[in-house]
Amino acid sequence: MSDSLFSYEIQASDAGCRARCGTFLTAHGAVQTPAFMPVGTAATVKGLEVDQLSATGTRIVLANTYHLALRPGDDVVAGLGGLHSFMGWNGPILTDSGGFQLFSLAQMTKVDDAGAVFRSHIDGWLLHLSPEDAVRIQENLGSDIAMVLDHVVGLPNQDDVIRDAMERSIRWARRCRDAATRPDQAQFAIVQGGLDPGMRAECAQRLAELRFPGYAIGGLSVGETPEEMYQALDATIPSMPENRPRYLMGVGRPQDLLEGVRRGVDMFDCVMPTRNGRNALAFTDGGTLRLRNLKYQRDDRPLEENCPCVACRRSRGYLRHLFMAKEMLGPILLSIHNITYYQRLMADARTAIKRNRFAEFFGKKQAGWAAGEDEEEGNIGDP
Amino acid sequence: MSDSLFSYEIQASDAGCRARCGTFLTAHGAVQTPAFMPVGTAATVKGLEVDQLSATGTRIVLANTYHLALRPGDDVVAGLGGLHSFMGWNGPILTDSGGFQLFSLAQMTKVDDAGAVFRSHIDGWLLHLSPEDAVRIQENLGSDIAMVLDHVVGLPNQDDVIRDAMERSIRWARRCRDAATRPDQAQFAIVQGGLDPGMRAECAQRLAELRFPGYAIGGLSVGETPEEMYQALDATIPSMPENRPRYLMGVGRPQDLLEGVRRGVDMFDCVMPTRNGRNALAFTDGGTLRLRNLKYQRDDRPLEENCPCVACRRSRGYLRHLFMAKEMLGPILLSIHNITYYQRLMADARTAIKRNRFAEFFGKKQAGWAAGEDEEEGNIGDP
Repeated sequence: MSDSLFSYEIQASDAGCRARCGTFLTAHGAVQTPAFMPVGTAATVKGLEVDQLSATGTRIVLANTYHLALRPGDDVVAGLGGLHSFMGWNGPILTDSGGFQLFSLAQMTKVDDAGAVFRSHIDGWLLHLSPEDAVRIQENLGSDIAMVLDHVVGLPNQDDVIRDAMERSIRWARRCRDAATRPDQAQFAIVQGGLDPGMRAECAQRLAELRFPGYAIGGLSVGETPEEMYQALDATIPSMPENRPRYLMGVGRPQDLLEGVRRGVDMFDCVMPTRNGRNALAFTDGGTLRLRNLKYQRDDRPLEENCPCVACRRSRGYLRHLFMAKEMLGPILLSIHNITYYQRLMADARTAIKRNRFAEFFGKKQAGWAAGEDEEEGNIGDP
Repeated sequence: MSDSLFSYEIQASDAGCRARCGTFLTAHGAVQTPAFMPVGTAATVKGLEVDQLSATGTRIVLANTYHLALRPGDDVVAGLGGLHSFMGWNGPILTDSGGFQLFSLAQMTKVDDAGAVFRSHIDGWLLHLSPEDAVRIQENLGSDIAMVLDHVVGLPNQDDVIRDAMERSIRWARRCRDAATRPDQAQFAIVQGGLDPGMRAECAQRLAELRFPGYAIGGLSVGETPEEMYQALDATIPSMPENRPRYLMGVGRPQDLLEGVRRGVDMFDCVMPTRNGRNALAFTDGGTLRLRNLKYQRDDRPLEENCPCVACRRSRGYLRHLFMAKEMLGPILLSIHNITYYQRLMADARTAIKRNRFAEFFGKKQAGWAAGEDEEEGNIGDP
């Protein structure tokens, strides 16, 4: 595999923490980090046209290999010109490997070194996925960044189960690296190791020796507390290469993103802005708003002052009405607002890092969220 | 009532038929006729942001008084600045009076000259709607064009039932006219009379004496055949004022629009492009396409060559995938395509009329539709 088309450069590091600002370059353009990737599971970020997605400030989208391989099939996507052409998105795309969905969605019946045997969540068919399959499928999809197949296990779990999955993930990472053929597709490895600091550090070091263009932190956001997750990041990141982008998979709430950035994470993906948006929950600097609440019925304010998104050209009263009337435009507008909120948070974080003021920036955001009117959703979010 | 802010001017008439081209001016801008109005029942054309709606070529939108009065309530809409501000649409808006929904949706329990008593289809509450209520509600909503309350009955029906409803509709039209107070809202009367040519002509003449700024043909698209509807138009239109816009309510298929235009109709509204779009049916010059069909799985062609809409920047294969995966973007993109198709049809009809070539234009369209691959939907469409 050649990764000549992919590069990453650090432009600034905050003096007060591990946060850093950078740019990575893909075959479909550059992305500034820290970056948030909205989730376009089935080759569409639910409810958003690609121009609406661009307008949120989004520069890179995640698509799910597991879903697309089952429907419409990676051969169909390839025949229709690959993912970019298929979905009409000309910017960078990252595909996951399917490892997380084997754990979370499919009925996984057997995992050994050959790969995973599982039942499709769509039609119940028994299917097999090897590391080489995961590479081939993602090469058919044609994403700019592909992920190695990893073995994800739930937490908490027994140490030997976690070690077994970690060792297999490292063996699979090497096989994925050796199977890759597309010079226009960069491949990221995934660090596993549960919540065990020693296993996390060991996995990060052993994968670093394999010299991938980027590294992800996987196996989190699977039932642990936020504090446990932050401790796992503290144990992992110092053992990851400094000069490669670091991607925290499937995380999370706005505060989780900033906790990650503070520790040196460069990339995030999460369904929270879209899934919560579809469920009438809006993120703002003053905390979350639940738009179905009767108190918004005659509220003529936008969700958030100074937000440039199209949802904020309307009143909270109108947005509430759309949800009460079960109109599609409610989920659409709140998804647009929430993704815009996440992208503005990342843009503001980049600015703060360049000014060595990340800690101050984070403190202000936390104070605003804590003063919020409504209650937060409890979960970190999952892909 | 003053209608000083509303005006209508005929710019061209086709030499070979009754088709004509014109412009009407409202408090929120001008509209060229023949015009098609997409249906935004609950103050949103389902799934479309207002900029997407503008991009289809739409200049005027219909909203449903019955739905908005029940939810969120016309007082709520008024408190949030009126319909334009509420939904973020700065172009012209027409509201119906609720008469059709009393007939089609609500459980109407009693109609007499005082008005209609009905049960809400949302919560079952017993409500009353008088002609004066219909005017007041639409003035609260703040539409540019309001409709008088009419008494709609199903077809076929007994002559005395149709006459009774027609006479009541004329009495109610006069009461609506006398109750109107907003100079920035024009009020259109509605011709009833079932399929009876004599009653249709009589109703049109008696309403013409009341000097409304515009006239609608109502009580059609309620179970009659297309041929019966065309005959009703033939019986009605010669008795309608020449120098006022004529609006055929709730119609219909592309061929029904052109049959109306040929007979001198200037305005249409219908849920067909959006409702059928949500159900994976696309309108094209070559007939309708049912996008769930397996034959489109690997079809890399757009729905229609030369269509400027965003859906036609994608393949049929992608659109099919969105419907199979139950993704919101499928209904959104097909609604955009279908409204764009209807608006292009009206724009092309206007051009043909100016060139005295409407009959030739209509003939070519019919030949294309007849050669279509898929079967047409059988119904004319209903609001």
